[in-house]
Amino acid sequence: MTNRPPIGRFPVPELETLPADIRERIETVQEKTGFVPNVFLVLAYRPDEFRAFMAYHDALMDKPGGLSKAEREMIVVSTSNANHCPYCVVAHGAILRVRAKDPLIADQVAVNYRNADITPRQKAMLDFAMKVALDSYAVGDDDFRALEVHGFSQDDIWDIAAIAAFFAMSNRMANVTDMRPNDEFYAIAR
Amino acid sequence: MTNRPPIGRFPVPELETLPADIRERIETVQEKTGFVPNVFLVLAYRPDEFRAFMAYHDALMDKPGGLSKAEREMIVVSTSNANHCPYCVVAHGAILRVRAKDPLIADQVAVNYRNADITPRQKAMLDFAMKVALDSYAVGDDDFRALEVHGFSQDDIWDIAAIAAFFAMSNRMANVTDMRPNDEFYAIAR
Amino acid sequence: MTNRPPIGRFPVPELETLPADIRERIETVQEKTGFVPNVFLVLAYRPDEFRAFMAYHDALMDKPGGLSKAEREMIVVSTSNANHCPYCVVAHGAILRVRAKDPLIADQVAVNYRNADITPRQKAMLDFAMKVALDSYAVGDDDFRALEVHGFSQDDIWDIAAIAAFFAMSNRMANVTDMRPNDEFYAIAR
Amino acid sequence: MTNRPPIGRFPVPELETLPADIRERIETVQEKTGFVPNVFLVLAYRPDEFRAFMAYHDALMDKPGGLSKAEREMIVVSTSNANHCPYCVVAHGAILRVRAKDPLIADQVAVNYRNADITPRQKAMLDFAMKVALDSYAVGDDDFRALEVHGFSQDDIWDIAAIAAFFAMSNRMANVTDMRPNDEFYAIAR
Amino acid sequence: MTNRPPIGRFPVPELETLPADIRERIETVQEKTGFVPNVFLVLAYRPDEFRAFMAYHDALMDKPGGLSKAEREMIVVSTSNANHCPYCVVAHGAILRVRAKDPLIADQVAVNYRNADITPRQKAMLDFAMKVALDSYAVGDDDFRALEVHGFSQDDIWDIAAIAAFFAMSNRMANVTDMRPNDEFYAIAR
Amino acid sequence: MTNRPPIGRFPVPELETLPADIRERIETVQEKTGFVPNVFLVLAYRPDEFRAFMAYHDALMDKPGGLSKAEREMIVVSTSNANHCPYCVVAHGAILRVRAKDPLIADQVAVNYRNADITPRQKAMLDFAMKVALDSYAVGDDDFRALEVHGFSQDDIWDIAAIAAFFAMSNRMANVTDMRPNDEFYAIAR
Repeated sequence: MTNRPPIGRFPVPELETLPADIRERIETVQEKTGFVPNVFLVLAYRPDEFRAFMAYHDALMDKPGGLSKAEREMIVVSTSNANHCPYCVVAHGAILRVRAKDPLIADQVAVNYRNADITPRQKAMLDFAMKVALDSYAVGDDDFRALEVHGFSQDDIWDIAAIAAFFAMSNRMANVTDMRPNDEFYAIAR
Repeated sequence: MTNRPPIGRFPVPELETLPADIRERIETVQEKTGFVPNVFLVLAYRPDEFRAFMAYHDALMDKPGGLSKAEREMIVVSTSNANHCPYCVVAHGAILRVRAKDPLIADQVAVNYRNADITPRQKAMLDFAMKVALDSYAVGDDDFRALEVHGFSQDDIWDIAAIAAFFAMSNRMANVTDMRPNDEFYAIAR
Repeated sequence: MTNRPPIGRFPVPELETLPADIRERIETVQEKTGFVPNVFLVLAYRPDEFRAFMAYHDALMDKPGGLSKAEREMIVVSTSNANHCPYCVVAHGAILRVRAKDPLIADQVAVNYRNADITPRQKAMLDFAMKVALDSYAVGDDDFRALEVHGFSQDDIWDIAAIAAFFAMSNRMANVTDMRPNDEFYAIAR
Repeated sequence: MTNRPPIGRFPVPELETLPADIRERIETVQEKTGFVPNVFLVLAYRPDEFRAFMAYHDALMDKPGGLSKAEREMIVVSTSNANHCPYCVVAHGAILRVRAKDPLIADQVAVNYRNADITPRQKAMLDFAMKVALDSYAVGDDDFRALEVHGFSQDDIWDIAAIAAFFAMSNRMANVTDMRPNDEFYAIAR
Repeated sequence: MTNRPPIGRFPVPELETLPADIRERIETVQEKTGFVPNVFLVLAYRPDEFRAFMAYHDALMDKPGGLSKAEREMIVVSTSNANHCPYCVVAHGAILRVRAKDPLIADQVAVNYRNADITPRQKAMLDFAMKVALDSYAVGDDDFRALEVHGFSQDDIWDIAAIAAFFAMSNRMANVTDMRPNDEFYAIAR
Repeated sequence: MTNRPPIGRFPVPELETLPADIRERIETVQEKTGFVPNVFLVLAYRPDEFRAFMAYHDALMDKPGGLSKAEREMIVVSTSNANHCPYCVVAHGAILRVRAKDPLIADQVAVNYRNADITPRQKAMLDFAMKVALDSYAVGDDDFRALEVHGFSQDDIWDIAAIAAFFAMSNRMANVTDMRPNDEFYAIAR
C-alpha cells in the first residue's frame, strides 16, 4: 500500500492493534479476495461499529431469499451512484459483475438502470430501491402493489428496502471518510 | 395495544415467538420505559437485522465521547424531520427533551435548527449533520475545518457523521414499514 | 417575557404605543388565550400590514365552510413544516390539537401527513395543499378532479388553496423575522 | 371580453352583484387603467379575501419607503417567474416598465435578474427576495449584513421580504385559479 | 451600438476580421432582420464552433417536418425560460410572436406553458420538451406513447427532442457568455 | 451485431444507404477504432444533424488549446454521469482512460470528481463544468475569477463551458434515443 494515496480522511489502524475477531475477519477476506477491501480498514477505526456494520451487511447480503445475489448488488450500485459514492459504486460494481457473470451490467445499472439490460421485474425493483434511497417519505401502498405485480413477496420488499437503507448509511460513511476504492476492484470481472 | 391502529405495514411477531436474546432486550426496555417502543416490535420481524441494528445504535448513542447525549439526539431529530420520518422525530424528540431537560428543544430542532435555542457550536454540528444527511457527496475538508473551529475533534466529527448516517438508514426503514410512533412518546417531558 | 430570548429580528413595539384597534385586538386575544401569541407582537411593527394580515387570516380560518376548523389547521401545519417555519408549526400545531381534540395529530401531520391518522379525504386535501405550497405552477384540472372524487366542492378547493397560499406568505414572514413561538404553545392540548 | 377565453377556473361575479366598496374599487382602477385587471375580477369571488388582499397589497406597494416603486415591482417580477405565475409576470412586468420608464427591464428581471441592467444594490435586493421566495428557512443574519452593505435599512429589508412573501401568496392563488393576464398588459410601455 | 452595454463576457471580433463565410452569413441576417442578433457576434469569436452551431440550428429549425415553425419556437421559449436564459427567451420570443402571428403567445409559453393559449397537442409536445430539458434520463417508452396519442410521428418526436437538446446547449453558452439580447427583439410583433 | 440488443429507439440506417461523406466518416472511425461507435449509427438517421454534430464535436475536442485531451474528457464524463447518460459515461470513460493513461480515472470522475485522483486545478475546472451543466443561469464573474486563480485563460474557460454545453445536448439526445454503448467500450484501457 506504500505508494498509493491514503485510503481516507481518518487514521487507519495497524492490523496487529485490532481486536482478534476483527483481525480474523480481515484476514479471511484477504485470503478469499486476495486483498483487503478498504471498507474494512476504514471502519476498523471503530471496532464496535465495525462489528455491527458487518453483521448488518451479512444479514442482508448473504442470507437466502427471493432476491438473487446479483439483484441485491444492483440495488447497491444504482443507489450508490445516486448518492455519488465512489467506494460503493466501484467495489459493489465489481461484485455485481461477478455475481451476474456479466461484464457490462455494473456500469449500466450505475449510470441509468432504466436503460440497462435487465428485466422489467428488476426495473420495478430498482424503481422502488431508488424511491427508498431518495424519497422514502413518499413510499405508499401503491409502491407495494407495483412490486407484487412482478411477483415480489412482502419479504422481498423488505429486503429491497433494507438494502437500499443500509447503503444509504454506507454511502454517507464512505463519502465523509473519503473512502478510497481499492485499485483492484476496477478491473475485476470486466 | 388492542384498540390502536396497527404499528406498521409488516407482521409484528408475538413476543413469545422471538429468540430469547431479543425477547430479553424488549423486556428490559419495557421495564425501563414502561412500554415497548414500536421500533423493537417492527424490526423483530428480522432477528439478525434487529441484533445488528441495536448493536450499531448502542455503539453510537450510548458510548462516551465528545458529544453530549442531548447533542446526539439533536442530530437524530433534525435529520429525521428532513427525511419526514414520523417515528424518529416523535420518539427521539421525546428522548431529546429528556436528555436536554428542555420541553421546547425537540420541536425547535425538528422544524428548523437554525432558529432553535442552541449554541453556535451546536448549529455548526447540525449544519454538518444535515449535509451528511442530504448531500454527503459534497462533504470536503472545508467542512472539517468549520467544525474544528468550534472545538470538535476528529472523533467528534466521525460521531456526528455516523449518527446522521445511521438514521439515514433508520428513517428509510421506518418510512417503508410505516412504523407508528407509540402514543406514549408524544407527551414525554413536555 | 423578561428572561426569555427576544421574539424576533425586528423591534417589538410597546403595546401602549400601538393604534387603539391593534391594541384592542391584542388585548382580546390575550384575554381569550392567556398570553399574547408572538405573531401579534412581531407584525404590529407595521400596523397597516398587521390589519390586512389579520383580516385575511380571519376570512380564511374563521368563516363557515366545507372544511372543518381542524382540517384548516392540518393544511397550515403540514405546509408550514414543508417550509421549515417553527412559529407556524408550533402555534398552529397547538390549535390543531385543540380543534381536533387529538393530542397526536399535529406532530403526525407536520412530519408526514401520508402516515398520519387521518381520512383518505383529508390525505387528498393535503396532497393538494402541498402541491399549492411547493409546485403551484403544476396545478391542473386533474387536481380538481381528484378532490371532487372525495366530495370537495369548488368552494372547498378555493379554501384549501387560499389557506396554503396565505401560509406560504406567513411562513416566509415568520422565517425572515425569526418569529419565536411562545413557550406556552408547546404544551397546549398534549 | 366576449370573444376572449375565460379568465380563470372559478366563476367571475357580475360587477353589479358585488358589494359597493368592491365595485367602486374596480370602477376606480378601470377609470385609471382603461380596463379591469383580471385579478380584481377573479378575487372578487370572495369579497372578504378581496378586501384583505387589496389592503395588504396597498400597504406594501403604495406606501413611501426606501425602495423605489420600480424596485418593488422588480421583486414581484423576479419571484413570480420563479413561481411560474403568468398573471403576475405579465401584469407586474407592465407596471415595472412604466415605473422604471424602461421597456426592457421587465423581461430581463423575469428571466434572470443576475444578467439584467440593474445596479449591484438591486442585485443584492433580488438575491434576498429570491431567497425569501424559495428558501426562507435559510435566511440568517448574514443575509441582513449583505443587504446593509448596500445601504438597505432594517425597514427596507422588511419591505423586500414582505413583498416577496405577499407575492408567494398571490402567485399561488393566480396559479390555482388559472388567472389569465389581460391582453392589454402585454404591450404596455414596450 | 456605441452607447449600449457590452454584449457579453468575451471579446467580440470586428466584422472585417472574420472569415468571409461568417461575415457573409452575418451580413445576410443583418439585411433580412435589420440588425445583427448578438448570438452571431458572440459566437463568431470561435469560427469553427460558429459554423457548426449555425448548421445545426438550421438543420433543426429551418427544415420541413411535422412541427410548425411556431411550434419549434415554443419548444425554444419554454425550455429557455426553465434554464433562465435571457437571450433565448427574448430573441426566440420575438420569433415565436412572428411565426405564430400572436403577440401574447411568447410570454405565456415562457412563464408557464400549462396555462398558455395552445392546443392539448402542443401541451403534450411541451411536456415532453421540458422532460428532455430537465430530466432526460427518465424519458421512457411511455413518453413516446403519450405523444403518439396526439398524432406525433417518430420523426416529430426526434425533432422535439433535438430542439430541446440543442437549446440546452445554446442556453448554457448564452448564460456563460452573458449574451445580451438585442434591444430590438423586445418589441418585435407585440 | 446480430445477437445484441438494438442500439436505440430509432431506426438505424444501413451503411450503404448513407450519403458518401457520412459513410466515409463511419468507415474511418471503424478502421481506427476497430468498431463503429453507436453514436455514429444512431445520429446518421439525420444526415444534416450528423454533420453539424460531428463538426461541433471536433471543433471542441480535437483542436489545440490550454486543456489537455484528458481534461476535456473529464468534463464529458463528470457532466454525463450527472445527466445519467450511459452512452457518454461508458464511451467517453474509455477515451478518458486512454487519454490519461490511467485505468481508474474514468470511474472516479464519473461518480464523484471531488474525491478523484486529480489536481486542484482540475477540480476547479470540474466545479465550473458542473455548474454549467446544472445551474448555468447562476454563472457569474466570481466563477471566472476562481478559474483564473488556477491559471485558466479566458479561452480555456470558453472551452470548459462549450464542452459542458455540447454534452448537455449530446446526453439529452443519447437518453431520448436510448443510445446503447458498444460492448467494446467497457473494457478499453482498463
